[in-house]
Amino acid sequence: MNKIYLDNAATTPLDPLVIDEMVNVLQFNFGNPSSTHSIGQDAKVLLEKVRREIAEYLKVTPAEIVFTSCGTESNNMILKSSVEHLGVERIITSPLEHKCVAESILDLKKRKGIEVVYIRPTKNGDLSLEELEKQLANSEKKTLVSLMHANNEIGNLLDLEKVADLCKKNNALFHSDTVQTIAHYDIDFSKIPLDFASCSAHKFHGPKGVGFAFVRKSSGLKGIITGGPQERSLRAGTENVCGIAGMGKALEISMKNLENFSQKIKETKKYAIQRLKEEIPGVKFNGRSVEDGSLYTVLSVLLPYNNPMIGLQLDMKGIAISQGSACSSGAAKPSMVMMSILNEEEMENNTPLRISFSHFTEKKDIDTLVDALVEIQAIHTKI
Amino acid sequence: MNKIYLDNAATTPLDPLVIDEMVNVLQFNFGNPSSTHSIGQDAKVLLEKVRREIAEYLKVTPAEIVFTSCGTESNNMILKSSVEHLGVERIITSPLEHKCVAESILDLKKRKGIEVVYIRPTKNGDLSLEELEKQLANSEKKTLVSLMHANNEIGNLLDLEKVADLCKKNNALFHSDTVQTIAHYDIDFSKIPLDFASCSAHKFHGPKGVGFAFVRKSSGLKGIITGGPQERSLRAGTENVCGIAGMGKALEISMKNLENFSQKIKETKKYAIQRLKEEIPGVKFNGRSVEDGSLYTVLSVLLPYNNPMIGLQLDMKGIAISQGSACSSGAAKPSMVMMSILNEEEMENNTPLRISFSHFTEKKDIDTLVDALVEIQAIHTKI
Repeated sequence: MNKIYLDNAATTPLDPLVIDEMVNVLQFNFGNPSSTHSIGQDAKVLLEKVRREIAEYLKVTPAEIVFTSCGTESNNMILKSSVEHLGVERIITSPLEHKCVAESILDLKKRKGIEVVYIRPTKNGDLSLEELEKQLANSEKKTLVSLMHANNEIGNLLDLEKVADLCKKNNALFHSDTVQTIAHYDIDFSKIPLDFASCSAHKFHGPKGVGFAFVRKSSGLKGIITGGPQERSLRAGTENVCGIAGMGKALEISMKNLENFSQKIKETKKYAIQRLKEEIPGVKFNGRSVEDGSLYTVLSVLLPYNNPMIGLQLDMKGIAISQGSACSSGAAKPSMVMMSILNEEEMENNTPLRISFSHFTEKKDIDTLVDALVEIQAIHTKI
Repeated sequence: MNKIYLDNAATTPLDPLVIDEMVNVLQFNFGNPSSTHSIGQDAKVLLEKVRREIAEYLKVTPAEIVFTSCGTESNNMILKSSVEHLGVERIITSPLEHKCVAESILDLKKRKGIEVVYIRPTKNGDLSLEELEKQLANSEKKTLVSLMHANNEIGNLLDLEKVADLCKKNNALFHSDTVQTIAHYDIDFSKIPLDFASCSAHKFHGPKGVGFAFVRKSSGLKGIITGGPQERSLRAGTENVCGIAGMGKALEISMKNLENFSQKIKETKKYAIQRLKEEIPGVKFNGRSVEDGSLYTVLSVLLPYNNPMIGLQLDMKGIAISQGSACSSGAAKPSMVMMSILNEEEMENNTPLRISFSHFTEKKDIDTLVDALVEIQAIHTKI
């Protein structure tokens, strides 16, 4: 069966050029970047080239890019080190964050007694900047704001610049989980005074097992994995050289084709909205999915019936798609994001479904999905 | 220039079959193992297959293998979580440990007030088990012993079973950094009652950026990277699927050829010792290098003159070799290991050089090295 993949917010298929780059490194550049001989230094040169490319993309300095094993590690490092080393005593966040941010903050609350303030989202999944401003002004404690750039389930985008300005004005640090937006948007951190951000290569057709943290030079953040002097002592451990090379190639391809890729995906998303509206009466969309201010790679659908088996049924029809975040999937209860924005009636009578696109997604894939949904609904409503 | 690589304790060239396996995964098994659809589950199945293979090799249960990004992360996780979650207040270790263990213990001493006891090595680099026993009996504090299986600079092997038994008898936890020995020896943790061990795939012809921690089921250890429920909540973050597959293949190849590979390497090492003795009058060997109880992949040489440029000079002759650990290289001062076993006179009048072999190392590579050393010495002694 030729499978259709509509779960690109969970992970993306690799670009063949990324695989070529990785193979090249695995074959011909196997040295340890910490070795001072030329075989080691060849690997080091490659790392620094990718670091420079990432820094150029984000308009920061190379020294502000710290290679890590994934977005989760980056977020852990930033949150935990902020408390351990920067004296943060209070974190302002939202119930919409990825599990690696939400759980790490709960861990800090439990182990370190950190005060945690949640900004409640509106019905639409938006966060009130007035509320954030009020909370920022509300305490003398050293505060870190941790709010994601784009929500991975409903796609709402945060105005990074406005939040960063508010934080700056109120002397708070600002961390944004940018895992869903890096390499999908033109992001300029020279204009956005945020302190920390995170990235995972497998969200933009790079390999799993590699990512980076953006750590503003002036922040004084330290690492949580200690040992050798790798990454200017911010992250010990021999670097994942082939993974970093793959991440660099994936970023290069994404940025070279940003206009084309995003245009195509936006059209696919628009087409999906139109087809769903036509074929599934009563369908709704969560968050900003069909409005401005939404991540163009994500469409959060609310199906007009309760069917917890929907994922499995679509999978049996050869369609790979999730109801929400992969890191929360398999769980018995609905995600925190859905619980935060849906009311009880909606939770009982509806089914969330997240379609997430890449530039490999074709309109005919959407047709196959919509046909399958219509078929499933017909059987489901008969029962 | 056809380069000669004699730095296999720093990292190893990849086996071509490992690269094939990784490419296959990158192309055809790109799913997120946390996704419940079949594309995700295909990746999950692969992870669990590798986990089972590792567990079979070590004679433990699959649930005791936690995939991480490297040996450094594994060691950090074990040491820091032991203090944070298992109530460890005292660590017994040695000055010969890898930087990731040594620095993490210093970090715990500084931030958490942990008592640290160092077992001083003999001139030969051995640790006295009597001294260890005395120290174990010497305190009521909850104690963790952290001693590496094989030293990465001088190759001395520790008797894991004896140390584990001593720890057990004295109610202490035992962690061993097994990064240099996993996949190079037949290791049976069903007979060695140690609690924690660590592994890095790139030390046995696998990729960089992936490793695992062995965590005894009964230990109650928790993770340090929190978030999603990956690795039974012991290590959050999307798994490095292609890296894990590469590690599995590298382990499979190592174990299938253990007898052949180790026999060949032992002969190469013997040949190197003989040639060096013949051609470099006054040459000495550090630690147990030329005795029983030495890691067969490492030969620590002490050249009979002081020449801090030796690494660079050999590199210019196309020979990649280190003076000590890669994670400490580039540093101005000699390594802790050398400072612990050499006296002042030796430090002033000699130069340490670590030859580390793999089954790809040929006797003619040793000839090239010895010729180069003779040439360098001739020039050096003229000056």
